[in-house]
Amino acid sequence: MPETIANKPAVVLLSGGLDSATTLALARAQGFACHALSLDYGQRHNAELAAAHRIAQAANVEHKVVLIGMNAIGGSALTDAAIAVPDHATDGIPVTYVPARNTVFLSLALGWAEVLGAWDIFIGVNAVDYSGYPDCRPGYIAAFQRLAQLATKGGVEGGEFHIHTPLIELSKADIIRTGTRLGVDYADTVSCYAADRDGRACGVCDACRLRAAGFKAAGIPDPTRYR
Amino acid sequence: MPETIANKPAVVLLSGGLDSATTLALARAQGFACHALSLDYGQRHNAELAAAHRIAQAANVEHKVVLIGMNAIGGSALTDAAIAVPDHATDGIPVTYVPARNTVFLSLALGWAEVLGAWDIFIGVNAVDYSGYPDCRPGYIAAFQRLAQLATKGGVEGGEFHIHTPLIELSKADIIRTGTRLGVDYADTVSCYAADRDGRACGVCDACRLRAAGFKAAGIPDPTRYR
Repeated sequence: MPETIANKPAVVLLSGGLDSATTLALARAQGFACHALSLDYGQRHNAELAAAHRIAQAANVEHKVVLIGMNAIGGSALTDAAIAVPDHATDGIPVTYVPARNTVFLSLALGWAEVLGAWDIFIGVNAVDYSGYPDCRPGYIAAFQRLAQLATKGGVEGGEFHIHTPLIELSKADIIRTGTRLGVDYADTVSCYAADRDGRACGVCDACRLRAAGFKAAGIPDPTRYR
Repeated sequence: MPETIANKPAVVLLSGGLDSATTLALARAQGFACHALSLDYGQRHNAELAAAHRIAQAANVEHKVVLIGMNAIGGSALTDAAIAVPDHATDGIPVTYVPARNTVFLSLALGWAEVLGAWDIFIGVNAVDYSGYPDCRPGYIAAFQRLAQLATKGGVEGGEFHIHTPLIELSKADIIRTGTRLGVDYADTVSCYAADRDGRACGVCDACRLRAAGFKAAGIPDPTRYR
């Protein structure tokens, strides 16, 4: 690994899903000293947070969970019990989109980065499979990076933040191949929008379909636990 | 009021302090249908949130409190019990700066705005008295407004967000004169960084000194309750 990166601290947003587990593995492989951040934002399925905990433990990195009462705001099938998670593909921006979610997540990651003295933040957004989510696109990430410079004590004093999105242009199959090469145990991860308390997947929501198709396309056995 | 603004929904960040109470009064005076948002971010003094509740009730506007566990991140005298609130003026960015606070707050306001179908967000930042806080400056606010366009379903679909900062260039005395003219009862507000449970002010922290000097300069009796 390049000497300049070795042991530089980085904050990695870790949802407990396949993408963020792969992102953590990539950040570690680059030599960053990773600090994993999960957000408990009133999502229906806390199985995701349990998965994040297992993944962070397996990677032997510090893990913080910050509570955010985004369910008070509602507006998404993931945080509002009155909106059903669809069991079929939908057009446009899906109801599983959580308003301003990645902006809230990146803001908290930025806050922790300032406290840690870290200049690097990793987020596992993907513009290929989640093209319906505005806050998964490269232009959005670039705008957040510019904001980070102006938002912070460190940025104002001349430091440079870098928002890393190593998965942004990868297909699900490429993400799975990459993580498998790096030793990620995908049985530990939960992607399903409607997982049960034990983290078992429904097999029919958008996230389940994308994930299953990814394993198939990668030619790698799918370790997902379905109910 | 202009017909185009009458009853347009707006989200107003309401901390419970003097500045945000004045901001709410200004947004209402412009004809916006205001929705007040307070953040319970692990600040030491919950008297602020009680003040926000009183102010929202007096203005007869909807009020939501969203919990954010920013104390898990620490790094500020306002959220970390290990850092003392200074009782004297300090140089540079003060220890009461909460890392990425306004970015987190504006992100949640943006999320609620999306749910409400609101395009207007009010925040009572001030670049004069809080010049030490990077996220109170006009350049920062402009960068957040650009981010909002890219971060949201509504922005991507062509809507335009506007982040209003009506106090940004006002002195504390001008803020107090404006609010007094609009009928704000400043006895309801809490600015002190170290207020007690009943909202009584210490009189010696940065926020108390700025506030007291503002009433003096405005020539308006100071209704603050000191302990």
